[in-house]
Amino acid sequence: MSSLLSSYSRLLVSSPRLLATSSATDRNVKHHGKPSGSPHETFYHSDLLVEQASPEEMKPKPAKDAILKFGHLYSDHMLSADWDDKNGWTMPQITPVRNLSIHPGAKVLHYASELFEGMKAYRGIDNKIRMFRPDMNMARMKRTAKRAALPDFDAEEAIRCMADVIRLDQEWVPRSTTSSLYIRPTLIGTDPTLGVGDAHAAKFYVLTGPVGQYYATGFQPVSLLADSRYCRAFPGGVGSFKMGCNYAPTIWVGKEAVKRDCQQVLWLYGNNEEITEVGTMNIFVYWKNEQGENELITPPLSSGLILPGVTRDSLLELAKEWNEFKVTEKALTMPEIEKALKEKRLFEMFGAGTACVVSPVGKILYHNKATDVYEEWKIPTMKNNPNLMQRFYETIIDIQYGRTTFRDWMREI
Amino acid sequence: MSSLLSSYSRLLVSSPRLLATSSATDRNVKHHGKPSGSPHETFYHSDLLVEQASPEEMKPKPAKDAILKFGHLYSDHMLSADWDDKNGWTMPQITPVRNLSIHPGAKVLHYASELFEGMKAYRGIDNKIRMFRPDMNMARMKRTAKRAALPDFDAEEAIRCMADVIRLDQEWVPRSTTSSLYIRPTLIGTDPTLGVGDAHAAKFYVLTGPVGQYYATGFQPVSLLADSRYCRAFPGGVGSFKMGCNYAPTIWVGKEAVKRDCQQVLWLYGNNEEITEVGTMNIFVYWKNEQGENELITPPLSSGLILPGVTRDSLLELAKEWNEFKVTEKALTMPEIEKALKEKRLFEMFGAGTACVVSPVGKILYHNKATDVYEEWKIPTMKNNPNLMQRFYETIIDIQYGRTTFRDWMREI
Repeated sequence: MSSLLSSYSRLLVSSPRLLATSSATDRNVKHHGKPSGSPHETFYHSDLLVEQASPEEMKPKPAKDAILKFGHLYSDHMLSADWDDKNGWTMPQITPVRNLSIHPGAKVLHYASELFEGMKAYRGIDNKIRMFRPDMNMARMKRTAKRAALPDFDAEEAIRCMADVIRLDQEWVPRSTTSSLYIRPTLIGTDPTLGVGDAHAAKFYVLTGPVGQYYATGFQPVSLLADSRYCRAFPGGVGSFKMGCNYAPTIWVGKEAVKRDCQQVLWLYGNNEEITEVGTMNIFVYWKNEQGENELITPPLSSGLILPGVTRDSLLELAKEWNEFKVTEKALTMPEIEKALKEKRLFEMFGAGTACVVSPVGKILYHNKATDVYEEWKIPTMKNNPNLMQRFYETIIDIQYGRTTFRDWMREI
Repeated sequence: MSSLLSSYSRLLVSSPRLLATSSATDRNVKHHGKPSGSPHETFYHSDLLVEQASPEEMKPKPAKDAILKFGHLYSDHMLSADWDDKNGWTMPQITPVRNLSIHPGAKVLHYASELFEGMKAYRGIDNKIRMFRPDMNMARMKRTAKRAALPDFDAEEAIRCMADVIRLDQEWVPRSTTSSLYIRPTLIGTDPTLGVGDAHAAKFYVLTGPVGQYYATGFQPVSLLADSRYCRAFPGGVGSFKMGCNYAPTIWVGKEAVKRDCQQVLWLYGNNEEITEVGTMNIFVYWKNEQGENELITPPLSSGLILPGVTRDSLLELAKEWNEFKVTEKALTMPEIEKALKEKRLFEMFGAGTACVVSPVGKILYHNKATDVYEEWKIPTMKNNPNLMQRFYETIIDIQYGRTTFRDWMREI
């Protein structure tokens, strides 16, 4: 950590690029081998401008034992870069977290020209700070940007810039192995014209903030509302991209779930009621299949309905590495789940996502579309022993907090 | 007009509520029969605060013959009101159009907590300014707000406030019977927390701006890309609400259409390839059905796939009033259209929406999913004589510009 710190201090001291020097002329200087005047296809870490928060702008850090409600607290600094279709990207900059000045006609406010990522940095038991698989999140963000008709950028440059803002706010990275620093890269269309079409201007920015566990109930099994009258994603849509538009329609449905004492929604698709996702997470089922094999199942990406989650991928990779049970990406329907429950073949069901790693399912409140009756299905996830979900959780957090290593999943900053 | 103007001047002169007097205390005073301290369930026209633009802030109006590109030009003033879950709505205010100051973690920027309306005011041939069926738009906006988990408000209060901002910017309402003042009511979730859930704070605002005809090609037939690999809306989704999230996924598909020399997308749904909408408009087909009856068809609202357009409703009402041909709301599939074209029974196909009233379809570029070949279907809309689409257009604009009246569709401001 100390070497990182000193390298950061050098950056602050030696960088000739203070914010005040930024100008249109600067942006068009010949560098990075680009001819003068052609639009910049990415922002560059080497251009990073830093405006440090003044002591008055710095916020008090939360107490060590504070309950960190997800997404309520932000670190002192943010990263940002602007884009327009004539000039391409500006230099990236780190500034204190400040309100954005957005034209009321900006595309992001009308047509949901927006996308985001969710990722985390962890303070390891060796006090080093590491990001978990940031290359996966940036690759997904680039794919999403293309689908959302928002501008592309270089993933590695973005990761380096993010590492710098985390380094600057390193005191915001919790000294705890149940908490972490949530990282929220965001890309929005900002040009103030009301035609439904390409954004001609955009802003990339990254917020960070300390978070504890996502669910207020902690590591407790959740109850899910499963009602095929509500649909999250569909073929020909954008369910496999992390666009903001996938979330707005779920909020009201989430409230309907809460009214029925459920914490999350189990999203179903199609006449056969395939399970697709749970809340904002991917879904996993561990069972004994009809052939008598122990099998871990998650819905496949091929349908276009499923967000390619980084935790999802990580659990699949770990399970394949262990090679102790069958690992399958395929559709699984509510009738199959009901049958397995009745035959006591269903061991565990859990969500998987960045915010919580895994989240056990304890109950499904199923709206039976044939009878219009809500049925309560008990899911024995917490009773299964040895517990696969728990093993995934412990393996992943051991990797995230530096107790062990696995491939190149952790990137030290 | 002159009486409206003088009443507006009185408002400016006599209103004791200048912006500088707005404060939390003011907002909690007992009025409108509400007990002190309880949240305001709407904003009230009688509370409207007006901050007039300074001469320096006023923009030059476009020349009479200027080409008005849709959504590129805004009038001088905007209307806004803020909401939070503790206090409810603030007093509404009219201010110069200014950038919004939005926290980078605001829900609107991440989860598309946003919705809007599109409506218009017209300067009649008697120089009076009228809105077209604003009650329909406000009723839809309230329904959409509920689905988007954003706050409700009173429709009539909103219309009165909008009338005031239009009156203040009356010189922005074009003196032309091909142009009008576009009105964009917007509602966004503004609280800066990253949990996917209810917005605890929101902003309602209204922009206006002069517009000519929507399509750059003017009243020319458009070519449509019809490709069932892209889907706009689906059962269990929010296609029948004017949420921002319905638009972001269409932008990239629109670009694919342009690549194939089409101006818009004809949105198909399901295995039978039902036609649902065209671009951002409702779709109408006028044909001779298999029973030999002349029939106007548009897809029904019951599926939840179709936005309940105000122009859609207006055309249906007019056609029923005329009572000269059959008027049907039902699903219509691509195979049915193909058959009718072959049998020369399809007379006209056109979009219907606020921006353009009607928009003739001249061609469909159909991606045949069985053969993976793009087929060009010529649609004889412009050749049909007498032309139903044209009759709709002329009837509607005669109502909008005050040449004739129909029910209570026009509301003088």
